[in-house]
Amino acid sequence: MASINYDIKKTIGVLSESPKGWTKELNLVSWNGRDPKYDLRDWSPDKEKMGKGTTLTEDELANLRKLLEAQENA
Amino acid sequence: MASINYDIKKTIGVLSESPKGWTKELNLVSWNGRDPKYDLRDWSPDKEKMGKGTTLTEDELANLRKLLEAQENA
Repeated sequence: MASINYDIKKTIGVLSESPKGWTKELNLVSWNGRDPKYDLRDWSPDKEKMGKGTTLTEDELANLRKLLEAQENA
Repeated sequence: MASINYDIKKTIGVLSESPKGWTKELNLVSWNGRDPKYDLRDWSPDKEKMGKGTTLTEDELANLRKLLEAQENA
């Protein structure tokens, strides 16, 4: 079975925590030894299991920030 | 085969577009007729196919906004 190597380089913040202790986090994650990308995803309490999520480049994160700021001020 | 019903209620913004026309978008999406949630996900040009993504509640989106603002000012 193929495996994915991941390394959480930096936890930027936790968005929420479920009753079972899973957390939705924004992290900088290196996948398979590549350069780290921003990553928005659910994680089990021990960080051994991950839920679905999405990765974001620096540019995408900047665009997301602008969208959220615009939405806040709308 | 089971199906998922989804309805993109509002496109808040597009974060990026791939060479093949897939877009990473922040939307308000109703899944299976439930109340719409924020949704960060890749979509095919015709919105017929979706990539992996993550949904966010209003609170999670607000927390994400705060994180990104704090990061910008760090």
